[in-house]
Parts: sequence; structure tokens; C-alpha cells
Amino acid sequence: MEDCSIGKRYEETFDQLLIATGAVPIRPNLPGIESEGIYELSTLQSGILLRQALDQKNPRRAVIIGAGYIGLEMAENLSLRGLEVTIVEKMPQVMNTLDGDMSALIAQRLKEQGIGLYLGESVRGFEAQDGQVRAVVTEKERLSADLVILGLGVRPNAVLAKEAGIPIGQTGGIKVNPRMETEVEGIWAAGNCAEAYHLISRKPIFVALGTVANKQGRVAGLNIAGVPATFPGVVGTAMVKIFDLEVSRTGLQEREIQQLGLSYVSAKIEGRTRAGYFPGAEKITVKVFAEKGSGRLLGGQIVGGPGAGKRIDVLATALHGGLNLEEMINLDLGYSPPFSPAWDPILIAVRQAAAMV
Amino acid sequence: MEDCSIGKRYEETFDQLLIATGAVPIRPNLPGIESEGIYELSTLQSGILLRQALDQKNPRRAVIIGAGYIGLEMAENLSLRGLEVTIVEKMPQVMNTLDGDMSALIAQRLKEQGIGLYLGESVRGFEAQDGQVRAVVTEKERLSADLVILGLGVRPNAVLAKEAGIPIGQTGGIKVNPRMETEVEGIWAAGNCAEAYHLISRKPIFVALGTVANKQGRVAGLNIAGVPATFPGVVGTAMVKIFDLEVSRTGLQEREIQQLGLSYVSAKIEGRTRAGYFPGAEKITVKVFAEKGSGRLLGGQIVGGPGAGKRIDVLATALHGGLNLEEMINLDLGYSPPFSPAWDPILIAVRQAAAMV
Repeated sequence: MEDCSIGKRYEETFDQLLIATGAVPIRPNLPGIESEGIYELSTLQSGILLRQALDQKNPRRAVIIGAGYIGLEMAENLSLRGLEVTIVEKMPQVMNTLDGDMSALIAQRLKEQGIGLYLGESVRGFEAQDGQVRAVVTEKERLSADLVILGLGVRPNAVLAKEAGIPIGQTGGIKVNPRMETEVEGIWAAGNCAEAYHLISRKPIFVALGTVANKQGRVAGLNIAGVPATFPGVVGTAMVKIFDLEVSRTGLQEREIQQLGLSYVSAKIEGRTRAGYFPGAEKITVKVFAEKGSGRLLGGQIVGGPGAGKRIDVLATALHGGLNLEEMINLDLGYSPPFSPAWDPILIAVRQAAAMV
Repeated sequence: MEDCSIGKRYEETFDQLLIATGAVPIRPNLPGIESEGIYELSTLQSGILLRQALDQKNPRRAVIIGAGYIGLEMAENLSLRGLEVTIVEKMPQVMNTLDGDMSALIAQRLKEQGIGLYLGESVRGFEAQDGQVRAVVTEKERLSADLVILGLGVRPNAVLAKEAGIPIGQTGGIKVNPRMETEVEGIWAAGNCAEAYHLISRKPIFVALGTVANKQGRVAGLNIAGVPATFPGVVGTAMVKIFDLEVSRTGLQEREIQQLGLSYVSAKIEGRTRAGYFPGAEKITVKVFAEKGSGRLLGGQIVGGPGAGKRIDVLATALHGGLNLEEMINLDLGYSPPFSPAWDPILIAVRQAAAMV
């Protein structure tokens, strides 16, 4: 058998080929970006390197660029480690996959934790001294930093596929059918290098999440092994923990619904994660969207205390089932005072939206 | 306006009448049951009385009769208060609404907490001294007690309706249609005095839960007010917290499936509530049932640590949507390491069961 050690070139024949090259973190070509002390998080190794830098260099001021999942999770954990943390985000809100009003709940929590937030600001470059980063320069500010985290998202690592002539979609991911086969017979793609189909927008989407990658890998593997399987697509579910806040979303957010030209209703309610009298009952905000007329669920967002986030799974399952609000009002969801009020907050939001359909 | 103070008889005419008489706790006619120190929990007032007895009489040994929701919740809370707690249950398992193997996980937890468990034993009566209960006598044991809790369930309080000639169903609850109207025009019933329709067994069922009562009350109220609404039914969801264990169930349990003569598959898996490497990841056991051939989901049960229980809502929503296992394998459920492994335990169970359909 051929030795396949790193850096060695060799040829290998195949009957079936799976491309699972993942995604690569976005690293903009800005002045000073090669300075020491600028980290991105993508592989286990990149996490280990950052951890070593924290332990050995004991940085005090961290600037995080990008307020997506990775950026916010890093903000929490660096702050809990005692660092002074500032986030710079070019969009006017944190977590662009949420509506602005829901995102504002997170921004408020970040500020309460003493995290600096510069929204709507682009980074122009980095200042360094003796090769070590000293500041992040935005279009408006100069922010001192001895540690910088790039949380600018990832793009599909589709270079290999593209060079081989395998069609790439508009999302930048490799085009695949529901069996996870590319447009070239016998060549398959799965995971963060491939596109997924969004069951609600009915368009291809690029989702860089482990859960989607796992499902795609399973389906590709089954088909390659001769067992027919399909991955119909995603409904756009994602979640993140930020301090004691649980944040989740599924389906389409308001902007996406508007872009599709759909006529819609929405409701946003504030409830409690548990029966109001039960210790540990925390605030939960639920927003749902449905198509005007049909009442078909289009999406939802949740921000709240412990127990809030995974409630998104009710909406995700309803999206898969194509349920409308009328069918959802009487969902027989689990109730017991330590876990929910008699009317689960999800149902309260559904009821309010249903009244407007 | 007529004075309606308690105990006064008077007549009132009506156009529409709603019967919402609730349920009454089952109190068997056993020798000594009128002794002091024997409590049941149904109304707020009954809870206040028990609390006063605990504060003032400082009982040390409690025997709980019945290992359903109320019995188990009382066992937890009396044990946490420092009482020596024993449960007596005539069925061979705790929580008869679960399958025996899932129930055994709860029994084990109770034992770990030092709670005595006598299963498959009926209570014969109570011994008292100076009118105060001193022991519970079962068919095999004499259990010392200075406090006894009756957790024997409730039955619909349908006496008023029955005497008025309104048809009562086989469950003992008032028969209602999906609009919550009884078989007598203009007379409605909702809540624990009324039946519900089980959407999976397709039979009437008596469910004494606040969540069902609330939904029925809403639908009855809307119809009485001239707004058409229906309550199609329940899927049998219920949950309870027992110490740090979360327990939930929905749909049909194995015994019910067998009684309906359905051909079925099932899978039981053990997973983790969070990504394995994330602090606080706890054990979760998930069991699912589906119809053989069609793969239509029939029910499921969950026992596990914090975050486990409300996952039942995915199965409940899927039951409402009539989803089959194949449609559920790729459910886009919320994932982030603090909340779930990349494959939610629900999906692992669904996948295993799907392989047997």
C-alpha cells in the first residue's frame, strides 16, 4: 500500500469519490493581518494554539472581529477568563441570522457583561509592534488589543472540486443532489464543502454546521455503499449560548421572507421558561412568522434563559412537517412546572400570530 | 344581582352553559383513612394544609401511596426536606405511563436517594393512635408513618353532568365533540371533567393535565363567544422532574400499542444531553416506537439529566404532523455543544428504529 504521509504526491484510482474538504475560515487581506496574536478558530489545532497563547502570554485586551456564533462564544469565554473584550462587527447588529429586535436582546446582555460593542464598523487593518499585534484599526476607532480573534465566518473549501471541473453553486459550495452526488457521476460531496437545500426558501444554501455535515456524510456514505438514502435539506436551524442566554432560530428570518416576496404575519411574545411560581423561571422571547392566508409556518427565533433555546426544535419539526399555525395551536407539548408554563411560550406566540393570519 | 355566597341555593337561567367542575382525587374507602396526617394534593388549599402540617408537626416518616406524578414529586420534595420517605405502589413499577424498562431508571434514582420503594403491593388500611396516623398496612408490610400522602390519581368530577342527564364516556369524563360541546346542545364541558380524544389511539382518553384543560377551556370559550374553534385532541404528552432526572413520554407506550394490535418496531438508545466534551453533559435514554411497514411514529419516552425532558416535544410535534421515521431522520434540530451532540439523541433513536421498519 502506498505511503500517504503529509506532503507526498501520489495517485490513487477510485470507483466512487467523496469530497469532504470542509470549509476554510475567511481571512481578509488587511494590512498587518500576519502579525502575531491574531487567531482564527476552525480546527482543533487552531483552538489548541489559542489556548496556549492565553496560558503563556496572558493577554489582557481582546478584540473580536465578527459577531457571529464563533465571535460571541469567544467573547463569552475570554470575558469569563478575565480579559477585557471588545467586539467589532461591520453589520449594524450582532448575529445577522436573527432579526434586529431579537439580536438587540443579545447586544444588551453583552453590554451588561462589560463587553464593548462596535456595530456597523469595518476593520481597516492592524497595528503591530515587533511583529505582535497592538491594535485593531476600524474606520472610526483605534482599539488596543494584545489578542485578536477573527470570527468572520467560513467559506466552502471547494477549490479541489472546482479545479477538477465539478460544478460549484452560487453559494460557493459544491452542487449536490439529495443523494449528495455532485453533477459528475461517481463523485460525491458532503459536509461544509457542499451546498444544502433550504426546504422553506426552496433555494440552495451554504450551512457551516456540524449537524448538517454529519447528516450529509451519512447519506453520502450510504449511497456510496449501495444503500439508497436522501438528504432532503435543512430548515435553517441554529443555536448558540451566550453567557446564560440561549439563542436559537429556524426557518426564514424577516429579511429572507421579504426577499422572497412572501406575504406574512408575525408575533413576538415574552413569556417564562417555567411556571411563573417555579424557582428558576426565566424570561423567554419567542418570535414566529407564518404565511398570510395559509398560515404555513415560515420560521421563528428564541432568546431566553436556561431551557429556552431547544424549544426551537418544535418549530423546526413543524417546518419539516409543513404545519400551519392552526395545526400548531393545540400541540400537546410537555408540561410540568419545572419545565414550562401550562401554555408553552411557543404556543403563546403561535396563537398570537394565528389571530393575524 | 343574586348573592352567590357559598352554601346558598338559587336558580340561574342560561343560554350557554359551561361545565368546568374539574377532577377529584381518588380516596379509597380503607380502614383508618379518616385519621389525621393523611393528605391528598388537589387544590391550592390542600397544598397549604400539607405545608402547615409539615411546618408545625415536623413529621419524620412519610409514606406515599401511589407512584405517579404527584407521588414522585412529593417523594422528591419530602426527601429534600429531610423526611424518611417510602413509596407504596400497587403496580409492579413506578409511573405506569412509561414502559417498565424506562420506569426502572426512575426506580433506581429513587433508591439512590434513599427512598424506600414497595412495588406490586396494595394498601389494606391505616393504623392510628389518638386519631393520628401511625402506620400504613399493606398486604405484606406494616410501614411506620406520621405522614401519609395519597397520590392515587384523580377521576373526572362529572357527577353534576351525570345527574343532569348529560352523557358520560367510558373514561368517566363528560363526552364532548371537538368544539367541546356535550351531547346536549348549548351545554359545554372543558378541563378535567371532560374527555379528550387521543389522536394516535383514536380513542377517548381522560387526561388530568393543566395543559389539556387550558386548551379545552380556550376552545369552549371561543365557541361560546361565537368564534368557531376546535380541539382535535392530544397525543398523550406528559412530563415530570424527579430530583435531577427529567422524565417525559408521548404517544403510545408499548402496552397500548400491543392492545391496539399494531405491528411495531422500537429502539432504545443511550446518549448525552450535550456534546460529550461539554461540561454538564448527562446521560439521556430515548425510546421510540413506530408502526412496522409505514414507519409512522407511534410514541416515545425519555429519561435523562437536565435538558433531556423537553426533547419529547420533537416527538409530540412529529406525532401531530403524522411524520414517519424516514421523514424524521434528517430533522434539522438545534445544535450547539452546550445543548446537544451533533446528532441529537432523538435522531439517534429514530435512526435505529428506522433501520427496523
